Amino acid sequence: MNNSLLQDQAHAFLSQYGKESGLSEETIHERQCFIKDEIESMGTYTHTLEEITYGAKLAWRNSAKCIGRLFWETLDVFDARDVKSKEEVARHIHHHIQHATNDGKIRSTITVFPAISSPQTVQLWSHQLIRYAGYQEQSSEILGDPACLELTIVAQSLGWQGEGTPYDILPVIFQWNEEPPSMVAIEKAEVLEVQIDHPINLDWKSLNLKWYAVPIISDRYLEIGGLYYPAPFNGWYMETEIAARNFVDAYRYNRLRDVANQLKLDTSSTTTFWRDRALVELQYAVYTSFKQAGVQMVDHYTAAQQFQTFREKEEKQHREVKGDWTWLIPPVSPSLTPIFHQGIVNEELSPNFVKQKRPKL
Amino acid sequence: MNNSLLQDQAHAFLSQYGKESGLSEETIHERQCFIKDEIESMGTYTHTLEEITYGAKLAWRNSAKCIGRLFWETLDVFDARDVKSKEEVARHIHHHIQHATNDGKIRSTITVFPAISSPQTVQLWSHQLIRYAGYQEQSSEILGDPACLELTIVAQSLGWQGEGTPYDILPVIFQWNEEPPSMVAIEKAEVLEVQIDHPINLDWKSLNLKWYAVPIISDRYLEIGGLYYPAPFNGWYMETEIAARNFVDAYRYNRLRDVANQLKLDTSSTTTFWRDRALVELQYAVYTSFKQAGVQMVDHYTAAQQFQTFREKEEKQHREVKGDWTWLIPPVSPSLTPIFHQGIVNEELSPNFVKQKRPKL
Ligand code: HEM
Ligand code: HEM
Repeated sequence: MNNSLLQDQAHAFLSQYGKESGLSEETIHERQCFIKDEIESMGTYTHTLEEITYGAKLAWRNSAKCIGRLFWETLDVFDARDVKSKEEVARHIHHHIQHATNDGKIRSTITVFPAISSPQTVQLWSHQLIRYAGYQEQSSEILGDPACLELTIVAQSLGWQGEGTPYDILPVIFQWNEEPPSMVAIEKAEVLEVQIDHPINLDWKSLNLKWYAVPIISDRYLEIGGLYYPAPFNGWYMETEIAARNFVDAYRYNRLRDVANQLKLDTSSTTTFWRDRALVELQYAVYTSFKQAGVQMVDHYTAAQQFQTFREKEEKQHREVKGDWTWLIPPVSPSLTPIFHQGIVNEELSPNFVKQKRPKL
Repeated sequence: MNNSLLQDQAHAFLSQYGKESGLSEETIHERQCFIKDEIESMGTYTHTLEEITYGAKLAWRNSAKCIGRLFWETLDVFDARDVKSKEEVARHIHHHIQHATNDGKIRSTITVFPAISSPQTVQLWSHQLIRYAGYQEQSSEILGDPACLELTIVAQSLGWQGEGTPYDILPVIFQWNEEPPSMVAIEKAEVLEVQIDHPINLDWKSLNLKWYAVPIISDRYLEIGGLYYPAPFNGWYMETEIAARNFVDAYRYNRLRDVANQLKLDTSSTTTFWRDRALVELQYAVYTSFKQAGVQMVDHYTAAQQFQTFREKEEKQHREVKGDWTWLIPPVSPSLTPIFHQGIVNEELSPNFVKQKRPKL
């Protein structure tokens, strides 16, 4: 990246941050000049804690695919830009899991590691901090989560061994500087999980469905003012993510037919609508199980209502909400939500979360 | 439209039509030269019956929003380009309804009226040939189909009077040449309708749900080789169109809560998933009622499978299927269909069905 592009991006972020935070024109201008010089002499610059905190919130607010953005101002930001060793990285990872989980009263959290232009860097390979292993069986069946086949092999090559259940918690894989990948073991004790039962159909335990409480996405960069930070972040789950996608997608756990059988639905024809029936029952089971376990979760209908409130609040601030319709509509009964019936412009604003591809520096 | 653009469009269509129909290069070339001269001297040209028949099928094959395209080759094309009076227009409309309905064994049908560049023209105002009226009540409630408020007023201004039920069949409104709009009354006797019952929940009759058998879209132009034809077309219904949209959308009949009450669902909270449950039950009721009445209909899961087959068949012909993802995914359990998980390029090929906006000629 050349200095003048970075200067422009820094300038633009500082203008937005300053204006929205009520800083005076003068203060903003001074800070912009300071950063300009810093970039000129160093080739990069350093955000203050306030800047990075607000920048992370803006990145959430700008996430076009996220239906949960009403709460963008309530993000707990942890600054891990000063990590000096792999052990410190590991400590921050454990801390994130613990802080976010909070016994089920989930806190939206982000941990910001050094920008990729820093002398010491963390490259997170894991898609999420908590994730179940996937094993290719000799029978050509897959045990566990098919989405994690590759990472499971990497973990095994680093000496990790799973128990061989469908829900073995993977270690977090990351690279420290240019070293070969390392791993941080995630202990069962630190991972809150929820067994999926059904409030009426009492025999559900035999389906052996469970999921972890907190989805902590870890393979994106947080981009603020032209700097790219590895930065795991989490909110709480919307029920469809687990109950319509993770358990159901043909390339994930693929359990819809098992659920239908458990419900004794007539699966002899498509036109009994058994797939749709099983899907709804699974939403209900996952949602009520999470609630019963005291773990925060939102249903897709409520989430869509919250998204409407978000849009209205933003419009009052004269900010047009951008969005990716194809991600924002829930995968269950989408036309029952207002999102389905509205247009929305899909545009990537900055700050944002971006695909992890090392930009040329 | 200038002659050279029209010549190019005619040329391109003739090339495609000729190649796919196995005509010799020479025959195609001769016809192209003939059309070129025709356009030069007349400013327009005339399709043969074969051209218009194949062109209409191509327009269906190219319809990016249509999930039903597997059957694009089985379209019954009626040539109404020679209509000389309003009475003849009316006769063709009645004929279309009758031929397409076919006692429930629905036939995909299109009736092609004179191109809009012709000396005598038909401008169809109705969105579909069969449609239920919508009345704004004094209570500010709406009786019937809110989508038809405007057309109902036009019909009334032409002297039509509905019975005041939620399902009054509107006349078809059209303009002959530049005359004021006329209407064609559609008799109850010529419209096949299906009463929606539920196979298990026997008390559904009290919901008073019914719908017509055949959706005949009438406010698009069929564009072939640069010529624009008013041309009502129909396939059969996919169950979601009625059961997830017409009966359920807040700006349509808006009956979801009534259905839930009929099913005695607990509607006290979003998280009983009563909306999703009622929606699935409504799919089931509509689908089984149509089948019981002997009226062709496809469920959304089967339609999605058929669309996959269509894609595969097209790819074998080295033709990339274009599509509008946001329309192709069904509004019920979309992620259970392969369409949801695949990318598709949204591009408007010609021939096609286009928005009815009189192009500058
Ligand atoms: C507070 C509760 C939250 C809810 C209920 C929520 C909900 C969702 C849902 C349902 C998705 C779609 C996921 C998928 O289909 O795979 C999503 C995507 C996303 N969310 Fe949120 N979210 C929340 C918090 C957050 C937070 C705290 C951040 C960042 C600070 C965030 C940033 C994003 C991003 C970047 C995506 C796109 C992910 C991708 O590209 O894979 N969300 N969110
Ligand atoms: C044979 C059975 C057919 C099925 C099951 C089918 C299914 C569908 C469905 C579900 C839609 C979306 C409708 C909506 O959401 O409003 C659609 C749209 C469409 N279909 Fe088909 N279709 C069929 C036949 C046809 C035929 C025969 C044609 C033309 C010759 C056609 C052309 C179109 C077009 C142009 C659209 C877009 C309509 C618009 O823009 O409002 N379809 N189809």
